[in-house]
Amino acid sequence: MSANHPVPGLLIRQAIQDDCPLILDFIRELAEYEKLSDKVVATVDDLAEHLFGDVPRASVLIAEIANQAAGFALYFHNFSTFLGQPGIYLEDLFVRPTHRGQGIGRALLGKLAQRAIEMNCGRIEWAVLDWNQPAIDFYRSLGAIPLDEWIVNRITGDNLARLADNSS
Amino acid sequence: MSANHPVPGLLIRQAIQDDCPLILDFIRELAEYEKLSDKVVATVDDLAEHLFGDVPRASVLIAEIANQAAGFALYFHNFSTFLGQPGIYLEDLFVRPTHRGQGIGRALLGKLAQRAIEMNCGRIEWAVLDWNQPAIDFYRSLGAIPLDEWIVNRITGDNLARLADNSS
Repeated sequence: MSANHPVPGLLIRQAIQDDCPLILDFIRELAEYEKLSDKVVATVDDLAEHLFGDVPRASVLIAEIANQAAGFALYFHNFSTFLGQPGIYLEDLFVRPTHRGQGIGRALLGKLAQRAIEMNCGRIEWAVLDWNQPAIDFYRSLGAIPLDEWIVNRITGDNLARLADNSS
Repeated sequence: MSANHPVPGLLIRQAIQDDCPLILDFIRELAEYEKLSDKVVATVDDLAEHLFGDVPRASVLIAEIANQAAGFALYFHNFSTFLGQPGIYLEDLFVRPTHRGQGIGRALLGKLAQRAIEMNCGRIEWAVLDWNQPAIDFYRSLGAIPLDEWIVNRITGDNLARLADNSS
């Protein structure tokens, strides 16, 4: 489950359970970049349970360059009712600042595109913050299309509980 | 897997494989409402394979009122790295026009909220078209929050293939 890439010294491999502390570091570093650090409550145990337990909820690719952990991609399957096919949803893509500009993000996405095609998933989708112009430009350069007309909604906490209560 | 709701005569039940033709009808009716009919290529066989096959990719709730099929909700799990927990992603929610205004959409969401809480999923997320004001108002009334700052991106077709090719 690993392959060499045109980026010199780059190895992209599937994460294993021992990577959970590293994955949590990546999640925290990504949240810091997104100015959302206060939202991170995940623990190593949470990741071990939900990524490597009985019902794995997502998969993780780790990028290493010269044996240093440089970045990661965390993804799971979604399902398109219009296509009648599963797709891939990329929840997190992150490359550490000192490793940027070398093509590592592109290589992670490329590996994910290979996975998508191998699994007959016709598309990859992900969300980007509207002020993250470097990322937006990068995704545009790959041919990704922004689905501007769609607004993601979220219900949680007390509102979720109230919705559940009123339906019993 | 069924329950009665405050809406008189309403039954919400888990879909079975025999419902695939009905589910495809709902998908097509939803696409027509969203002005996206040309995007629907799914078949009954696709739905049977991916909803009821070896690796189910999504689950479906069917709403029936007085034994008539009135609407559906199709959902799957996503995963929040910040929470370290799975959530529920609602791909499709649809109530047939003749059955609207009776609380069926709310009942479908309520049943889904119950599922979310039972499964320790702290949130439900879904996307709405920015011109669909009745839906936006309805979701707002439930306490859902629009994640306006996130833009969903998609890569597909030739661009996906090119991304995969350049990484081998």
